[in-house]
Amino acid sequence: MTKVNNEKKSELGITAEKDEFSDWFTQIMLKADLADYTDVSGCIVFRPTAYAIWEKIKEECDKRFKNLGVKNCYFPILIPEKLLSREKEHVKGFSPEVAWVTHAGDTKLNERLAVRPTSETIMYPSYSKWIKSWRDLPLKLNQWNNAIRWEFRHPVPFLRTREFLWNEGHTVYANEKESLKERDEIKKTYKEVCENFLALYGVYGRKTEREKFAGAVFSEKFHYILPNGKAIEGPCFHHDGENFAKAYNIKFLDEFGKAQYANQNTFAISTRMLGVMFAVHSDEKGLILPPKIAPNQIVIIPIFDEKTKKQVLAEAKKIQKELSEFNPILDEREYQRPGFKFNEYELKGIPIRIEIGPKDLEKKQVILFRRDNLKKDPIKIINLKKRIPKILEEMQKNLFNKSKKLFEGKIQSSDNLKDIKKIIESKKVGIVPLCKNEKCEEMIKFETKGAKALFIDEKKIKGEKCIICNNPADYFVYVGKSY
Amino acid sequence: MTKVNNEKKSELGITAEKDEFSDWFTQIMLKADLADYTDVSGCIVFRPTAYAIWEKIKEECDKRFKNLGVKNCYFPILIPEKLLSREKEHVKGFSPEVAWVTHAGDTKLNERLAVRPTSETIMYPSYSKWIKSWRDLPLKLNQWNNAIRWEFRHPVPFLRTREFLWNEGHTVYANEKESLKERDEIKKTYKEVCENFLALYGVYGRKTEREKFAGAVFSEKFHYILPNGKAIEGPCFHHDGENFAKAYNIKFLDEFGKAQYANQNTFAISTRMLGVMFAVHSDEKGLILPPKIAPNQIVIIPIFDEKTKKQVLAEAKKIQKELSEFNPILDEREYQRPGFKFNEYELKGIPIRIEIGPKDLEKKQVILFRRDNLKKDPIKIINLKKRIPKILEEMQKNLFNKSKKLFEGKIQSSDNLKDIKKIIESKKVGIVPLCKNEKCEEMIKFETKGAKALFIDEKKIKGEKCIICNNPADYFVYVGKSY
Repeated sequence: MTKVNNEKKSELGITAEKDEFSDWFTQIMLKADLADYTDVSGCIVFRPTAYAIWEKIKEECDKRFKNLGVKNCYFPILIPEKLLSREKEHVKGFSPEVAWVTHAGDTKLNERLAVRPTSETIMYPSYSKWIKSWRDLPLKLNQWNNAIRWEFRHPVPFLRTREFLWNEGHTVYANEKESLKERDEIKKTYKEVCENFLALYGVYGRKTEREKFAGAVFSEKFHYILPNGKAIEGPCFHHDGENFAKAYNIKFLDEFGKAQYANQNTFAISTRMLGVMFAVHSDEKGLILPPKIAPNQIVIIPIFDEKTKKQVLAEAKKIQKELSEFNPILDEREYQRPGFKFNEYELKGIPIRIEIGPKDLEKKQVILFRRDNLKKDPIKIINLKKRIPKILEEMQKNLFNKSKKLFEGKIQSSDNLKDIKKIIESKKVGIVPLCKNEKCEEMIKFETKGAKALFIDEKKIKGEKCIICNNPADYFVYVGKSY
Repeated sequence: MTKVNNEKKSELGITAEKDEFSDWFTQIMLKADLADYTDVSGCIVFRPTAYAIWEKIKEECDKRFKNLGVKNCYFPILIPEKLLSREKEHVKGFSPEVAWVTHAGDTKLNERLAVRPTSETIMYPSYSKWIKSWRDLPLKLNQWNNAIRWEFRHPVPFLRTREFLWNEGHTVYANEKESLKERDEIKKTYKEVCENFLALYGVYGRKTEREKFAGAVFSEKFHYILPNGKAIEGPCFHHDGENFAKAYNIKFLDEFGKAQYANQNTFAISTRMLGVMFAVHSDEKGLILPPKIAPNQIVIIPIFDEKTKKQVLAEAKKIQKELSEFNPILDEREYQRPGFKFNEYELKGIPIRIEIGPKDLEKKQVILFRRDNLKKDPIKIINLKKRIPKILEEMQKNLFNKSKKLFEGKIQSSDNLKDIKKIIESKKVGIVPLCKNEKCEEMIKFETKGAKALFIDEKKIKGEKCIICNNPADYFVYVGKSY
């Protein structure tokens, strides 16, 4: 069994400490077969394990969307330039990152086509056509698709990729009151999926004016903090009010026959959540997956020699069958030693490993290894089926609690510029009082060498001063470096 | 009840006969809210009903793929030009239809990027990296994604769109024998989904050399015939042999340590099957959907006045609840008359309509209307739950049989050029003996003003002569105009 530790630092395993975040994270992505680089800079392959997790996220969100009356549809990925340009704030926000199609075969197109960075500008001309009366509202559509934003910042697998997969919900209501009700429904949906499945603790909050979605009235998002102290945005909800309705002429006749502009929201969750989850839970042995999102909850490693092979494999198969609801892998490969397999599945983050050898058989037990806390315990075979759901539940809770601790451990309040600079330097996220003047927000970013206002804290200001201009502060904001 | 017929030919309903196929089909697409045009020529909106059917097709195929050990993944949509060009036949086939990304924001890219017309050329460089030993095989990956082929022929919603949705399976085997076994599995998968769910009769057959997939050793597809006599290709299976393995260097060490090229297949089903299904089953009243693929199997229309409203609605709701497994819509709108609703749901293809009024209530019955044969019958409420599955099954079978009849009625054999020209003129598909000389295949197309060799018949040649050159024929081929 000593083989395990010897092989730990081999080329196959992770050779970076979690502190060296970038190297550690990249190694996990590649060595646990989650992603691979491609010849298109900034675009990755989503390999089967990562993609299966994305399918699970989709499934859980989708069923909740459907319960809210949201219907799926599909709009073209290509958007004529003139449509993209109609909402001025929006096009300003996105055009620097747009990938442009200019030719089809050898023919130059009359008008450039944007590869969608987001679909407002292709969807809303149809909305304008479809919505005529208050009876056509609400209209609640959603797409699960791919989008491209050609950012020039350094790409990181899952966390910042030029192509990503996501949902984009686009809903239309008759008035603001109704449209704002949706915020809580969407927030609840994403919270359930991210907390209960991805085991991720995040904080939901409103963006400052400077950081909101291009074209929105306000933007609210879940925020996460990675082990390297960098913040990252998760699922989001944007309230657009009448902004896009005015730009794309989405009007309806109300019950009294009066023409009104419609009120709109959008919301999204993307594949960057895979990266957040991989980064937050994993360790120096490799990937750790919350059991509720893992494609396989269990791997069974039979340990045998020529003499005991038949008996051990028979029992292993019996266990595999009995535990089929947990999608157990049974690794029968004889050309790899158990120690090698232990490392491999630890690297790949299978939540539970069941080891079974001839001595275990004699005792009618197996050895059960938990990937989250690396603890090994014997367990009677007869108790497996009853105990495993409880162990998986414990693991799920444990990972969520750890992620909450990680988040909370990275947060520090401060009421002056000197301290916030130190907080950022020590790879943490600060909470500071700030006024609404965009100049002050810019100044923080300048002074901290790149930390920005992440979102507005729920806690109300009680006479605090803005740490930049010393005038009365308007709110507390989370400030940190971010992806 | 006469209102029904009066409204039939109104603007809301279908105003074209099925004979005027193009107009009729387009009206159904638009008026049954299946698709809409967009400002991007050749690209449509897949509206919720059409998209929900696509989701069902995906689900049924996907679960069969997974049972075959195929895993889902995701590769970038953008493909560097140099990768696209590596397999010569392949690039020749696709480059005239490629949409090219040349700029990101204001920056001109160093190398043009193709929007995927299909993913061989972006996937196989990764395959080359991942596959090292016979132990890495088979590798069975699949993507559900969007693809773009910028055809310059007249686009038709679903049937020929520049962007389409599809699966693309890409599998790798150690040798030809194993790879060819997959053909039957994939054929079975697509056949089950298209016959049992879409209720479509199609014929599977091999393409001629001239018509096979660019880069394949051979291509086989399901073929359908639309009411206008035009053939259309359905799901396909391509056997690539070592062609791509050689171009993309996909090699492995076999059990004896010898380097070997891998053997590959690809397979696909696309959203054009939605168009095939809509076109084959529908009629002059609008869409007809096979019950097993319809998002809602039943619509309940309560008929009442002020006095009977409460009682009728209560019963309608009770029925809705009892039949919940069939996703019944209950249309309670009071501002639309029953006749209007009848037309609307006939147009939208809901398989069963249940009408319930005060007189029915007295008799403890409802009126049940079948969309496939337009028959109306009273049925006791107490029998509904038991009878409906049987009726739906009958409808499903009926639609499949009709589609088989449609196909067979469009086929005519011929052993000479004069007859085949007449067959094509009469909007049918011919079967003719032909030799393998590509010139003869070209000549048929020329002589018939555009009918091409669709696929090779299973029936063997017994001394027949090629209808063009009069030399011994090599096979019988189906010849027809096509999408």
